[in-house]
Order: sequence, then C-alpha cells, then structure tokens
Amino acid sequence: MSHEKYKSMITTLHECMTACNHCYDSCLKEDHLEMMRECIRLDRECADICSYFEQALVRGTPYVSELAALCAKICEDCGNECKKHDHDHCQKCAEACFKCAEECRKLAA
Amino acid sequence: MSHEKYKSMITTLHECMTACNHCYDSCLKEDHLEMMRECIRLDRECADICSYFEQALVRGTPYVSELAALCAKICEDCGNECKKHDHDHCQKCAEACFKCAEECRKLAA
Amino acid sequence: MSHEKYKSMITTLHECMTACNHCYDSCLKEDHLEMMRECIRLDRECADICSYFEQALVRGTPYVSELAALCAKICEDCGNECKKHDHDHCQKCAEACFKCAEECRKLAA
Amino acid sequence: MSHEKYKSMITTLHECMTACNHCYDSCLKEDHLEMMRECIRLDRECADICSYFEQALVRGTPYVSELAALCAKICEDCGNECKKHDHDHCQKCAEACFKCAEECRKLAA
Repeated sequence: MSHEKYKSMITTLHECMTACNHCYDSCLKEDHLEMMRECIRLDRECADICSYFEQALVRGTPYVSELAALCAKICEDCGNECKKHDHDHCQKCAEACFKCAEECRKLAA
Repeated sequence: MSHEKYKSMITTLHECMTACNHCYDSCLKEDHLEMMRECIRLDRECADICSYFEQALVRGTPYVSELAALCAKICEDCGNECKKHDHDHCQKCAEACFKCAEECRKLAA
Repeated sequence: MSHEKYKSMITTLHECMTACNHCYDSCLKEDHLEMMRECIRLDRECADICSYFEQALVRGTPYVSELAALCAKICEDCGNECKKHDHDHCQKCAEACFKCAEECRKLAA
Repeated sequence: MSHEKYKSMITTLHECMTACNHCYDSCLKEDHLEMMRECIRLDRECADICSYFEQALVRGTPYVSELAALCAKICEDCGNECKKHDHDHCQKCAEACFKCAEECRKLAA
C-alpha cells in the first residue's frame, strides 16, 4: 500500500513541513523583518505543498510524479532563500528543503 | 518554540492522519463498499483536521485549545466508526484515532 | 494584484471545488456505490487541488503555471470519470471540471 | 444538499479567504513590515480556516456548528488586527472578516 511504499518520502515531507513552518513562525519574530519577506513567503508555499503531498501520498493519489516534480521545485527555491540567512532556523530549514527536494526529484523521475 | 513544545502532539496527529488516509484508500478498494460509506467520510474529515492542526501547531497558531477540542471530537467519532469494522486498516485506524483524541483532549483542557 | 489578475480563474476553481465536493458527498449516498469508487477518489483529488490552487493564486504564489498544469490534468481526469455516470451531480461535475481544465491549460501555457 | 443550504455562508467564506490572502500578500510588500507581523500571521490563520470550512461545508461535514464557532473566533481576531492598519487591503480585510464572523456566529448558534 501507498503508506508503506512511500514511507521514507512521507517522513521527509513531514520533516520539511515542520522545518518550514517553524522557520515561518521564527522569521515573523525576527528583528530585521524586512530581510525576511521572501523567506516568510516561501516557507508558507513550501510548508503547504509538503503537507498537501504528504496527505496525497498516503491516500493513494494517482498523481505521485506530478506532485513530486512540483514539490521538488518549491523545496529547492525555499532552500535557496533560507540558505541566505544566518538564523539557525533558516539554515536548518534549508537543509530540510534540499533533502526533500532531492528525494522528490528521485520520485518524480 | 511551538514545534518542540508540541512535539508529541504533532507526531500523534501525523500518525492519525496517516492511519485515516490509509483506511480511506483501503476502504475504497473493499468488496462490500456500501458498509464503508461512513468510514470513508469520517476518514477524510479526520485526516483533514489532523493535517490542519499539525501545520497550525508548528506555525505557532494562537488557537491551540480550540483546534485541539475540535480535533478530539472528530478523532473520537472516526475511531468509533472504524471500530465497527473488522478490516485490519479500520482497527488500526480506530486505535490511532482514540490515541489522538485522548492527547487532544488533554491539550484542550 | 494577484486576486484581480486571476479573478476569473479563482471563480472557476471555486466552482469546480464546489461541484467536486458536492459530487463526492452525493456519490457516498448513491445506491450502487461500487460503481462510484473512482468518482469518489477523483472528486477528492480534484476538490483538494482546486482549493489549494485557489488559495495559492490569491496569496501571490510564484508557482502559477506549474500549479495550473497540474490542476488541468487532475480536472481533466475527474471530468472524464464523472462523465461516465448518469447522476445529475456527476454530469454537472464533469462540466465544471472540463471548464476548469481548459482555463488552467491557458494559464499554464 | 449542503452546497445549496449553505450557499451564502460558502460565498462569504470564499470572500473572506480572498481578502485575507490578498492582505497577506500585500502586507509582505509594505514598507513598515515590523508593524504588520501580527496581521500577516492572522491573515494566514484566517485564510486557512475559511478555506477549510468552505470545503467542509460543501462536502457535507457533520461538524458545521463546531467549525462555524472556531471560524467566527478567528475571523473576529483577524478583523480586529486588520482594523488597526490604514492600508486599504487591511481595512477591506477587516470588513470581510467581521461579515464572515457574524455569519459564522449565526450558523454556530
């Protein structure tokens, strides 16, 4: 079944969603908020698509490769933005995003 | 931060969402589909609210107790419906739902 | 701004989400449920992606064409499944799906 | 059916989700971003619950009054925050939120 076949992908998506929402929450509390605009925006985009794809995988969606390709792109973009910022939550988010992007790309292929 | 404070709740919600979506997917493939109407419906309701609450917790939502109370109710109902059916996916889903309902109730209190 | 630029697309997505969820709800109440398995499954897939894309468009997502292409595909599949069934809710859902698929394809191009 | 019975509520939720996501997108582009922290956060909370409740209503959720009560509270809070800011998008969002909160309260009663 889907939830076993995609176990690793589901865990990685869950970790990426968590890292992105934590980064979003933390960015909104940072001092120099003006620098975090794009990070806040992409954190939400990335958290939402990871959460969506996670659910879709478990319910046996017929659109695995399409969603994986889209998710890979958004994770890559979010990781690249987060990487620019020194905050610990941004660096950890970038890491989670790149890991997720890579696993998504493999699944999409 | 939220994602650490609510770590156990987030994991439990994730497991419940997974069990519900797996049960939904499996129910849709069962022979006697007419008996699974309510199970399919509640699996989706429960998966959706668990997924929603999970994200909300990590992003630092100000509505923890309200969402916990709502989620507890839906998990309880879904668990009671799943419990009626002998399928392994239904029994496991009931278990995940009752565990999640209990943890939600504590958080709501 | 996004919410004005994509006004027509947003309305069409909203109508498609509504038609799909109504069809899902109605299918779950039909007599010959075994024939509606695929319709129930695709109704949820289609309602979820339309709802997702709708929100993403209004919040200024950078992923308009990618989401439009994915949504077009899911709408097309859901419409083709719904078209097979004589129920009024299925026929109306097929119509909403095909309209949405076409508008998504134009946006993706 | 649900989608007819709740037609007005569904439209109001859709308008509120649209206003909140537009306000979120616009806030992220404003000059004095530090003043918009809470507005950005509540816009997302409110957009997400309105979108969720909208879908749930159309699919015949058994949790109408519970979701209406929760949505009323979040809309009220978001409206109160938006009302503080002079930006046109904030004022319009406050209006949409208060209208939605009122309709939700009636439905919850």
